[in-house]
Amino acid sequence: MSNKKDRLIYLPLGGAGEIGMNCYVYGYGPEGRERLIVVDLGVTFPDMDTTPGVDLIMPDISWLVERADRIEAIFITHAHEDHIGGLGHLWPQLKAQVYCRRFTGTLAAMKLEDRGQPANVVSIVEPRPDVVEAGPFKVQFVPVSHSIPESSALIIDTPAGRVVHSGDFKLDGSPVVGEAFDPKEWHGIAQEGNGVLALMCDSTNIFSPAPGRSEATLAEPLAELVASAPGMMVATTFASNVARLKTLADAGQAAGRSVCLMGRAMKRMVTAAVDSGVLTDFPSLVAPEQAADIPREHLMLIVTGSQGERRAATAQLARGKYLGLSLKEGDTFLFSSKVIPGNERGVIRIVNNMSEMGVDVIDDRGGLYHVSGHANRPDLEGVHDLLHPKILIPMHGEHRHLREHAKLGESKGMSTEVATNGMMIDLTTGYPQVAEYIETGRVYLDGNVMVGAMDGVIRDRIRMALNGHVMVTLILDEAGEPLGDAWAEVMGLAETGKSGRPLVEAIEGDLTEFLDRADQKVLRDDDKLDDALRRIVRQVSMEEVGKKPEVTTVVSRLDG
Amino acid sequence: MSNKKDRLIYLPLGGAGEIGMNCYVYGYGPEGRERLIVVDLGVTFPDMDTTPGVDLIMPDISWLVERADRIEAIFITHAHEDHIGGLGHLWPQLKAQVYCRRFTGTLAAMKLEDRGQPANVVSIVEPRPDVVEAGPFKVQFVPVSHSIPESSALIIDTPAGRVVHSGDFKLDGSPVVGEAFDPKEWHGIAQEGNGVLALMCDSTNIFSPAPGRSEATLAEPLAELVASAPGMMVATTFASNVARLKTLADAGQAAGRSVCLMGRAMKRMVTAAVDSGVLTDFPSLVAPEQAADIPREHLMLIVTGSQGERRAATAQLARGKYLGLSLKEGDTFLFSSKVIPGNERGVIRIVNNMSEMGVDVIDDRGGLYHVSGHANRPDLEGVHDLLHPKILIPMHGEHRHLREHAKLGESKGMSTEVATNGMMIDLTTGYPQVAEYIETGRVYLDGNVMVGAMDGVIRDRIRMALNGHVMVTLILDEAGEPLGDAWAEVMGLAETGKSGRPLVEAIEGDLTEFLDRADQKVLRDDDKLDDALRRIVRQVSMEEVGKKPEVTTVVSRLDG
Repeated sequence: MSNKKDRLIYLPLGGAGEIGMNCYVYGYGPEGRERLIVVDLGVTFPDMDTTPGVDLIMPDISWLVERADRIEAIFITHAHEDHIGGLGHLWPQLKAQVYCRRFTGTLAAMKLEDRGQPANVVSIVEPRPDVVEAGPFKVQFVPVSHSIPESSALIIDTPAGRVVHSGDFKLDGSPVVGEAFDPKEWHGIAQEGNGVLALMCDSTNIFSPAPGRSEATLAEPLAELVASAPGMMVATTFASNVARLKTLADAGQAAGRSVCLMGRAMKRMVTAAVDSGVLTDFPSLVAPEQAADIPREHLMLIVTGSQGERRAATAQLARGKYLGLSLKEGDTFLFSSKVIPGNERGVIRIVNNMSEMGVDVIDDRGGLYHVSGHANRPDLEGVHDLLHPKILIPMHGEHRHLREHAKLGESKGMSTEVATNGMMIDLTTGYPQVAEYIETGRVYLDGNVMVGAMDGVIRDRIRMALNGHVMVTLILDEAGEPLGDAWAEVMGLAETGKSGRPLVEAIEGDLTEFLDRADQKVLRDDDKLDDALRRIVRQVSMEEVGKKPEVTTVVSRLDG
Repeated sequence: MSNKKDRLIYLPLGGAGEIGMNCYVYGYGPEGRERLIVVDLGVTFPDMDTTPGVDLIMPDISWLVERADRIEAIFITHAHEDHIGGLGHLWPQLKAQVYCRRFTGTLAAMKLEDRGQPANVVSIVEPRPDVVEAGPFKVQFVPVSHSIPESSALIIDTPAGRVVHSGDFKLDGSPVVGEAFDPKEWHGIAQEGNGVLALMCDSTNIFSPAPGRSEATLAEPLAELVASAPGMMVATTFASNVARLKTLADAGQAAGRSVCLMGRAMKRMVTAAVDSGVLTDFPSLVAPEQAADIPREHLMLIVTGSQGERRAATAQLARGKYLGLSLKEGDTFLFSSKVIPGNERGVIRIVNNMSEMGVDVIDDRGGLYHVSGHANRPDLEGVHDLLHPKILIPMHGEHRHLREHAKLGESKGMSTEVATNGMMIDLTTGYPQVAEYIETGRVYLDGNVMVGAMDGVIRDRIRMALNGHVMVTLILDEAGEPLGDAWAEVMGLAETGKSGRPLVEAIEGDLTEFLDRADQKVLRDDDKLDDALRRIVRQVSMEEVGKKPEVTTVVSRLDG
């Protein structure tokens, strides 16, 4: 037996201090030998500023991988990419059983199969009162409303007490698809046993002061909009927002329009929703090939790409034809969505392209045509009050969200801590104590390999993008003397410099001058020669075009 | 004498179909021999998505340069960078006299001097009724309110009629600094002569449905906020928003705080405003060196960098010390500004850094601490109604703004046209007719040289950022046979591929295999050899790391 006391720990590896790539760990047992469960394995998306050319960003789970033998289970709260997107990529390093509800499970199995992993590691769990026993943990799925079907909070019972992990949620009494928010159920959770020790709580909308609105409030305005549109009606929203797809499709049907879904992700989601039984009585659909033959005023498209993604249906329609259909003057295009910060430029480009086509573009009109999937500040307070946990740890937010949520919690008498990625929190004593700081970070899926955020690969790409790239080739003969002149190749710099000469010539000229005078000490020393060539290239480039490029030198020694 | 009739033309070269780099041309005279005036020479700013490493973006003014002998004058409406920022760079190609009001003139002279151009080409013009005669044009400056001092609309009288070029404006009866909006004056402009033929009108805020609010409404809330802040108070806004600087500084003074301005641009603006007489009774300031000795609760900083610019004071404070001062827990940081679309990520990064420091960050709170400098939809209608022009041409807006503004104008009985950059509009007949499409576009200041947007330089940089760059070096001996193996250098790609080998080795291995078997037809033909090497590099890279890099080949022929 250990002489160390058992403890209950919480460790965010992703999603705490950022919105995206959620990954949380809970542990129970003697220090250093805790049995572990993982909640969510999400991704986040690259941008040109910091991660050009990268395909996906995932949490660095090295800490978990080193302790893979202690992992009892993986739980996935819901099927948004920032909660499930890393499953196919990261599961092979963890190899634990995966638990989730049916709709999420359908998509989890696809994620695993996409990466050649066995789909049968996914176990479908029914909601509370069903319990998954995972080592010292007893876990129940509590249905919550969110912008995707079957999102769940988790009740995690441990010998040290009950933890509620909220997942992503909102309070919606009429969510169109899925279970309504049930305050009695939440009150009951707080009444069982010793009540709630700790609540780990979504912080996304902590800065939204008004109570959140129900998905059901959109039906009427959307129906009116779709009915009054003169030409073709096109609407985009997140593919996974199945309730919104239904509201939109219902509006189309009510207006006598044939409804056509476009975009791979959207079809995949609707199929998963129908297969898992969460979506019933969805209006019948027409295929894009049929749609082309339907008069525009009797047609409604529901398409992917609300965030301006370049390859999605919205962007393709804004550029021209997509699957035989194109936008025309008099059509209406609705963004039944909000722009995620950072995606503004892409979306605005699309709106302007559509404007040039004479299409009327309509945004969410301050919430008339879109509601958020997250609980606003008063809703969060409502949940605090229902669960009245001893400890509140804000999660799923940037630092500013976590801090604001913690301030709110403190003002209401809860013990709180702003716990960001890598901060291991000991919950055992009834108030949060920082136990340890774990090294965390991000890894990138780049093409089909993983690179670390700190490997320098992406840094080199950014530098080439900012500064251009010059390559110098020099051949030295058997005697160590330059064989001919050095060659320069330039990529990403102005062709002609200030002197009026081509930049390449200016660089080569100075390199020749240098080589004519260089003594053998330098010519024989690879490092010194490399330094000298590099310095000359940067100096000439600075003089000629005002930029210091990245430089690669290739020195071939024929005697080598 | 010409047998062609005189005509009045309008030609936007920048700013119509985008917000930024404003440049408009008016011409009067026989077709092809019109005398010309230029209104504004602005810039726009690069972003990592489309213009990595670029310093500034300017309109392509080739059309004007080819007709430089026909330019009578350049008018600058106000000193925002998107109206004046190109002056120093583009003036040398135009060399016409520059007319503007005093404050704008002070900054125009600096812009010219910065680029080694003569500052004495700037003529200071007093507002209407003063008139500048420029060939067939008679031009008056009409003071308008905007977020910078001395913004002006232009009345451009021509033999074909009166044109009003609105510049950037809002309707503000109490603008804190500068002249209040005077409806009588505008009514008068419409009453003179034959009234207004055409209004070229700011469209920025056409989508804002409520009437705009006055700068003066900010004084009270700002004073309350500054007075109630417990620690150091720091506020950022656009450096050129001199009225806001005054409101903020007044709030600081009223709260008993010493006020300190930080950031080069801000000092330059205040100096220009004081020198030109637009700014009087500005609170006395302390220098940053003095500020460090003042108790935090008695100090207020007003700093640059509201858009998250990496080198500005705000970003530097968010990273640590700036000029000896740093933020601490309990300080308050106010963004008395709005985020321009595209700058969200940078600003959010700063807010989170400050949150980590324990600083309370406050945004504009839905307009409580910031008002826009542009006229909203009802204000635009007000101006339409005062001037009742025959023709309305929306300008200063993306396509969606121009289109919406044109729709509004049409609904009110004006002749309109969505005239984007390069569309020459003939106004002579009293309704807008597209006369010609001019080739326009953008040029980039990249380091210290100009490159065309279509030159491929920036495209190459973007490709390297997305795909990485591989350089292949091959030496062929006098017999045309490879001398040793080909070398590869890799930049911006994962070091190790799927096979577990270093990527460089994998590439070099396949290149060696190819060269061993390559026949002389290929080896002797530079193009074929280049193609083959390139194809192999891409293929190996795709297999190993899942990316197709940019490839540069250097083949040295010793017999060459």
